[in-house]
Amino acid sequence: MSLITLTTDFGYADWFVGSMKGVIANINPKASIIDITHGIPAGDIRAGGFALMAACRFFPPKTIHVAVVDPGVGTKRAAIAVETGRFVFVGPDNGLLSWALRDESIKRIHRLENRKFFLPELSNTFHGRDLFAPVAAHLSRRIKLTELGPKQSNLIRLPWPERRRFKDAIEGEVLYIDHFGNAITNISSTDLADSDSAKLNVRVNTHIISGLSRSYQDGSTDAPLAIISSSGFLEIAINGASAAAELGLQIGTPVRVSTAMK
Amino acid sequence: MSLITLTTDFGYADWFVGSMKGVIANINPKASIIDITHGIPAGDIRAGGFALMAACRFFPPKTIHVAVVDPGVGTKRAAIAVETGRFVFVGPDNGLLSWALRDESIKRIHRLENRKFFLPELSNTFHGRDLFAPVAAHLSRRIKLTELGPKQSNLIRLPWPERRRFKDAIEGEVLYIDHFGNAITNISSTDLADSDSAKLNVRVNTHIISGLSRSYQDGSTDAPLAIISSSGFLEIAINGASAAAELGLQIGTPVRVSTAMK
Amino acid sequence: MSLITLTTDFGYADWFVGSMKGVIANINPKASIIDITHGIPAGDIRAGGFALMAACRFFPPKTIHVAVVDPGVGTKRAAIAVETGRFVFVGPDNGLLSWALRDESIKRIHRLENRKFFLPELSNTFHGRDLFAPVAAHLSRRIKLTELGPKQSNLIRLPWPERRRFKDAIEGEVLYIDHFGNAITNISSTDLADSDSAKLNVRVNTHIISGLSRSYQDGSTDAPLAIISSSGFLEIAINGASAAAELGLQIGTPVRVSTAMK
Repeated sequence: MSLITLTTDFGYADWFVGSMKGVIANINPKASIIDITHGIPAGDIRAGGFALMAACRFFPPKTIHVAVVDPGVGTKRAAIAVETGRFVFVGPDNGLLSWALRDESIKRIHRLENRKFFLPELSNTFHGRDLFAPVAAHLSRRIKLTELGPKQSNLIRLPWPERRRFKDAIEGEVLYIDHFGNAITNISSTDLADSDSAKLNVRVNTHIISGLSRSYQDGSTDAPLAIISSSGFLEIAINGASAAAELGLQIGTPVRVSTAMK
Repeated sequence: MSLITLTTDFGYADWFVGSMKGVIANINPKASIIDITHGIPAGDIRAGGFALMAACRFFPPKTIHVAVVDPGVGTKRAAIAVETGRFVFVGPDNGLLSWALRDESIKRIHRLENRKFFLPELSNTFHGRDLFAPVAAHLSRRIKLTELGPKQSNLIRLPWPERRRFKDAIEGEVLYIDHFGNAITNISSTDLADSDSAKLNVRVNTHIISGLSRSYQDGSTDAPLAIISSSGFLEIAINGASAAAELGLQIGTPVRVSTAMK
Repeated sequence: MSLITLTTDFGYADWFVGSMKGVIANINPKASIIDITHGIPAGDIRAGGFALMAACRFFPPKTIHVAVVDPGVGTKRAAIAVETGRFVFVGPDNGLLSWALRDESIKRIHRLENRKFFLPELSNTFHGRDLFAPVAAHLSRRIKLTELGPKQSNLIRLPWPERRRFKDAIEGEVLYIDHFGNAITNISSTDLADSDSAKLNVRVNTHIISGLSRSYQDGSTDAPLAIISSSGFLEIAINGASAAAELGLQIGTPVRVSTAMK
């Protein structure tokens, strides 16, 4: 229980992430710290939640996952730690943790209120450094969640954009666009498990993609393709180019899959 | 004394930072390395100095802080190590370290001239890799500063832009703009300690901000706000947007605070 | 043999690099991981190959260098591990490793086919996480290359753009442009060893640069200069500005050096 991950929108230009790591090293020099990403768009709780969900399960049991995308920092929004069967999650109670928790069995949720585990001076603008980092460092030294503050029975859930199922089709939307310009949707591989992947049609904006590709180089260059992404969701991509830019895809763009039974 | 931090303008696109870490690992495999940031704008000594100042104090005692923003690399500018009551700072003697040292008690300054502690081949363009990284790694193995080269009595100081105090006002300027677009000024929380924070007026360009906010969400969306930043200075921000972009703020933009006694 | 480096085009915006590190930590919690860079342009095998070549030799013996710029992921392109006198290299067999291997004595090459060392579920789009990271982690626990899969006698070589030598001139081209806008060519310091560096003329596009500079500040601001870069190649730079932007340099732009014997 000495591995801590960080997922934030603090970027790479400033000293914010470095300060968090300094605080952790000060409290537990033996903690290992791994960055999931600090490139979440400013204040984008959905993107942060998706990144945390996609990455967290690849870490060892007992990993402490700290996520800070926190537009409400300094307000009355709660700060929480959530212990699950595998991990501990630490962050603001603003929905950021909730998508990662869809796959977890929650054991307990505690509010972070015991100032003994904060930095002595708590700013109103940087709880990543003053609150979440020190709490995570103390957790990595095996304090118990019960010491952190009162128990809470639930947490704020970010709505998961549900796909709609029709007789011969599934309608979903673009959930995340990665830095390659690949557009990841909310339609999962499980949703498509019973369909014939060669006979699928994917419609997005005015484009129709026929069949699921097995790899990015499966299709011709420049042609949009549909593929099961490494996060387990249907993804729209173009070999060697940005599908988002070429096809005008944004978060929320509708995606319709016409299915045909195997 | 085996924690080394790095603050540079080497960016994230190339292999420069990785090479520095390889050099350190080669000399002291047990050293821990933490990035403060490598996103300092190219050659911007002030931005690098501000980042180092803002972050360094959150690290454990004995941390070795290496900073390399070094437009004069390969010229006769000196390279130095500075031991203070808490830390060791390593970098070019071009002002980069001086803002961080404002809060430190300097014990000794030594020039880095003993080539025994450099890489065998010293390039003229990358002292981060060939000089500063190996020196820091050797320091983390507890060699003494006296072994590095001759003592130096002082270092080059970057002028600190002083704010001007009037009877009912303080005039300062924008010192740093972070990746959220928040503009940090040289007016400190101490400067404002005796004023009534609700009755302050902050004027920047043509905008007037009334009162200090307690959090970014204190005001309405889209309205500029003034807040004490996590680095202890007055900051101009906009909830959910870039104050720098919206208000046309740049490094050096004047900021005037009209104060009213408590 | 517990240090692993990573060189990829996965960027900093998403969770991809973090996932790879989680996989490694899961298999070998004691492995140290150092990022060479994740900022390689998407799919740019040459840029990735150059970065790996420039950085790898600064790492300790036995370092495991993992590189993933892999547009052919999920196709029949092979994945390989290459043991040399100093290091182990792991990556797709698409030329990416070949420039780094120009300076190495290759002992053996094995294809990565033993699924025992992959993640249980192998995606078709993210072998960095599912194949290369776990293989590297197992290698850091000292499994032998022979366990990974069948031996292979050679690997795919990226053509090295050869410079042409004339009686009084050398013609080469721009190989890499770094984030400062410095343009690194394929003309090495060895190529110029017999020439008088003060009497060289470098012609690039319509610009002529007279003599080699010793440092970036050697010339006047705004004037293009030629210098031996820290990677050992002739570099075109401008003090305090981007030579690539100012001079219109791109990968492949021809560079001609008129030499004069010492």
